[in-house]
Amino acid sequence: MAHKIAVIGGDGIGPEVTAEAIKVMEAAGVELDTTDFDLGGARYLRDGEILSDETLAELRNYDAILLGAVGTPDVPPGVIERGLLLKMRFELDLYVNQRPFVGTAPGHDRPHDFVVIRENTEGPYVGEGGVLRRGTPNEVATQGSVNTRMGVERCIRYAFELAQTRARKHVTLVHKTNVLTFAGDLWERTFDEVAAEYPDTETAYNHVDAACIYFVQDPHRYDVVVTDNLFGDILTDLGGAVSGGIGLASSANLNPDRTGPSMFEPVHGSAPDIAGQNKANPTAAVLSAALMLDFLGEPDAAETIRAACDDAGSGSTTSVGDTIAARVRE
Amino acid sequence: MAHKIAVIGGDGIGPEVTAEAIKVMEAAGVELDTTDFDLGGARYLRDGEILSDETLAELRNYDAILLGAVGTPDVPPGVIERGLLLKMRFELDLYVNQRPFVGTAPGHDRPHDFVVIRENTEGPYVGEGGVLRRGTPNEVATQGSVNTRMGVERCIRYAFELAQTRARKHVTLVHKTNVLTFAGDLWERTFDEVAAEYPDTETAYNHVDAACIYFVQDPHRYDVVVTDNLFGDILTDLGGAVSGGIGLASSANLNPDRTGPSMFEPVHGSAPDIAGQNKANPTAAVLSAALMLDFLGEPDAAETIRAACDDAGSGSTTSVGDTIAARVRE
Ligand SMILES: CC(C)[C@H](C(=O)O)[C@@H](O)C(=O)O
Ligand SMILES: CC(C)[C@H](C(=O)O)[C@@H](O)C(=O)O
Repeated sequence: MAHKIAVIGGDGIGPEVTAEAIKVMEAAGVELDTTDFDLGGARYLRDGEILSDETLAELRNYDAILLGAVGTPDVPPGVIERGLLLKMRFELDLYVNQRPFVGTAPGHDRPHDFVVIRENTEGPYVGEGGVLRRGTPNEVATQGSVNTRMGVERCIRYAFELAQTRARKHVTLVHKTNVLTFAGDLWERTFDEVAAEYPDTETAYNHVDAACIYFVQDPHRYDVVVTDNLFGDILTDLGGAVSGGIGLASSANLNPDRTGPSMFEPVHGSAPDIAGQNKANPTAAVLSAALMLDFLGEPDAAETIRAACDDAGSGSTTSVGDTIAARVRE
Repeated sequence: MAHKIAVIGGDGIGPEVTAEAIKVMEAAGVELDTTDFDLGGARYLRDGEILSDETLAELRNYDAILLGAVGTPDVPPGVIERGLLLKMRFELDLYVNQRPFVGTAPGHDRPHDFVVIRENTEGPYVGEGGVLRRGTPNEVATQGSVNTRMGVERCIRYAFELAQTRARKHVTLVHKTNVLTFAGDLWERTFDEVAAEYPDTETAYNHVDAACIYFVQDPHRYDVVVTDNLFGDILTDLGGAVSGGIGLASSANLNPDRTGPSMFEPVHGSAPDIAGQNKANPTAAVLSAALMLDFLGEPDAAETIRAACDDAGSGSTTSVGDTIAARVRE
């Protein structure tokens, strides 16, 4: 049976890289039934739609969503990101943001291999807060982080389950418990309680500032890292930077309970400066498609694609896609 | 006139590194009148004092405070940090945390030179928040960031003033305005308004996740970086990691209005594992003392000390201190 995939190419280089991802999946013999959804900044400028509730309801009928990138310079920053990306994460309950990092950090001589599990539906991303006396010398702006036991626990549990499938079985919690005492206490307590259910799994805790040092100086210490929404945002861009560049960073926005489709997207943005020039590296999109295949129960195709991405070179978008597709076909 | 300095050696390697910093300042011919304050984890374990209001009142009589490091494994994480470091920052209104970074990042072939100005008295560090139904499946923990126009503006203004003293005159705001819309709007608007008063100063804006990538891949783009308390915490540890290691990172906690003493401390911790072994590198403490001398109106001594720290080697604590002191005396 063909997998029903909603494809949101989006803006800038987005449609170029998703096209290569689909090419590679088809080369791997995966049966796909794809439908294009015209969403993103360009669409918004045309008729005002970012992601209507009707479109969201349609998306629920698919097995998965493959997204390229959204955002254009003509739309104020944040509008499309919040209205489309964050709306999908929240409304489809994509509570795990999984981002794998395999690469050799600058100044190191051997590759690391770790994965960050970022909570994707709570924390400082909920939009809690407000502003008082805007525009006056007495203005006060607040921004809240909301964390629930349910939300924190299901994310941490996913991280421990993932660790069971990996050689090292090691999970590190990253937070800032010494300062963010309310949220930190909930995260730490929940982490310790879930960890007790996995006695064979080693655990560690790092403050987020220390974790940034280790990502650069000692990335080999990590296997599975679990953290909150904002720290995960920060650490995964840093993870990309120390793993061959953000152009290779893939991500899965998962609803592990499968009450709806999950969403897969490269971590990079829409790069309007090189859009339409066949210049963007499609590897991150291809690797995101591999994560999608893992989740859709096609681990062999996923593994073949991942292997084919190794040193796939840095030619044009289509030539890198062709190279990977050719290797996959072999 | 001798400068009246309160010295808080603190825990672990703290007293060892502040001793070298004082040795070097004296070698530079700076007249110091120092008083030791026995504070930190060890003191807390002895008689329960972290930083009483009486001690705080005493500290106000000094020109500056030099701190080594605080925190010991026997005290729960956060207790000393909040009760001593954060209490000083808040109560003495040390609203600017200034951390300079000069070094060559891994994989780069020439040194960068930038400084991070971190807001030091607001944001997610205020301790706002709470917990509901603790320990139940329905637990909710909130953590708030509070930002005032006054607090944000004075920090941004300091960054622009600092930029006037530097060759490039470039200030970058780092925040996460696309998601943290309430706090981000205040920071962005205030930044733009202050920037308009400095038409010769170039400006840029980066989201914090992108800034982490640039710190690793393109640190040369930065001159002065201004950001909030939590992002500043994260970025300055990362800054240390890409600038020769956190063992070289110095910091000034400034009350630029001079309504009380400012506080100077290395960014590194108390490193209990190597305490008392004459092993810790005192360079970060010496460089923090140089920042103190800048602030106390001794820029020549500060500059001499900074120059003497270049490649001061990596011997024992006292031998590195002796090397720097000898160079300073020349
Ligand atoms: C575009 C933005 C809203 C998003 C985020 O902050 O989560 C992005 O940075 C990411 O990491 O997916
Ligand atoms: C010890 C801790 C409270 C402190 C902070 O978070 O500010 C430290 O990390 C720093 O950067 O000075």
